[in-house]
Amino acid sequence: MVRAAPRQPGPARRADAERNVAAILEAATRLLSADPSASVADVAKAAGVGRVTLYGHFPSREALVDAVMRHAVGLADAVLDDPALDRLPAPEALARLLRSSWEVLDRHRRLFVAADRVMATERIREHHERPLRRVERLIERGRRDGDFRTDLPLPWLVTTFFSIIHSAAQERAAGRLAPEDVERVLVATMTSLLTSS
Amino acid sequence: MVRAAPRQPGPARRADAERNVAAILEAATRLLSADPSASVADVAKAAGVGRVTLYGHFPSREALVDAVMRHAVGLADAVLDDPALDRLPAPEALARLLRSSWEVLDRHRRLFVAADRVMATERIREHHERPLRRVERLIERGRRDGDFRTDLPLPWLVTTFFSIIHSAAQERAAGRLAPEDVERVLVATMTSLLTSS
Repeated sequence: MVRAAPRQPGPARRADAERNVAAILEAATRLLSADPSASVADVAKAAGVGRVTLYGHFPSREALVDAVMRHAVGLADAVLDDPALDRLPAPEALARLLRSSWEVLDRHRRLFVAADRVMATERIREHHERPLRRVERLIERGRRDGDFRTDLPLPWLVTTFFSIIHSAAQERAAGRLAPEDVERVLVATMTSLLTSS
Repeated sequence: MVRAAPRQPGPARRADAERNVAAILEAATRLLSADPSASVADVAKAAGVGRVTLYGHFPSREALVDAVMRHAVGLADAVLDDPALDRLPAPEALARLLRSSWEVLDRHRRLFVAADRVMATERIREHHERPLRRVERLIERGRRDGDFRTDLPLPWLVTTFFSIIHSAAQERAAGRLAPEDVERVLVATMTSLLTSS
């Protein structure tokens, strides 16, 4: 790999900074997904950078958690990019999208708990804009096809999807919902919510 | 009113402290319900106490918001104590409870936004234990009477009530749900969620 000469520190420093940010985000996503109380010092150590370097990129724990949330949702959205969704009837596609969304969320549910402690729900929702657009397109299609209700506003139905699946993560974390029940409960809840009228 | 003599400062000081706490909670509930960003200094000023006194009772903004949430939910629970609920058929009682819960929440929705910024959802839910017991009793009765579904766990149905009504507060605050639509949307959503199977 060609390093920039000492006289031109700009690009090399930028590459270092990018590597550091990537290492910090990877370590923070891993640590916070295992323990929502993981400290900034733990993250710096796991990423192999100093705390000063970490704070140079993320001035507070909130800023770090915010960046990790963006990073994790980006990874999740790639998983949800499933071509089969467009081919299935909307109700079946909904069940499939719910299951894969839950799989991803369940893996990162401690990270979600960490975010919920320091971030407003509205901010967490903003990070989910891309996956929520998938949900919106699917519900829109179901309404066009006559499979889903049209008596409630589309943005509200999208919100209930976000809210119901995140409630399941909370309930699972609090021990009020058994892990083996989650998928059935989510599919039954969203199906009756979208198909009744 | 009889004041304790100077030689026995205990009870008088306790009475002062109680008056201060009551004034702080009243002022904080009022200010935070008008503006979720209201500062601790604003609250102390409105309550007519010094900041040192306020911090003596509530060591952080989080502690103050937590106490205000407890206070406000206590007031709300008194409003929800409606004898008609037990006489109406469960589906009608549900619509009535949703409407009165929404009225109370809507009045305090900025306070809810303030709490959501600094508190975990699980903690906010803990504060709602008493009103949620009302919801639980009502859903239980509806299930016994054959009006509500029994294929989903009772705690999950109670959670969806909490989650759906708080989502409505978020959506209203974010301008994605028109104020005049909220009641209809809430009742339609919870009714289909509880009566489908």
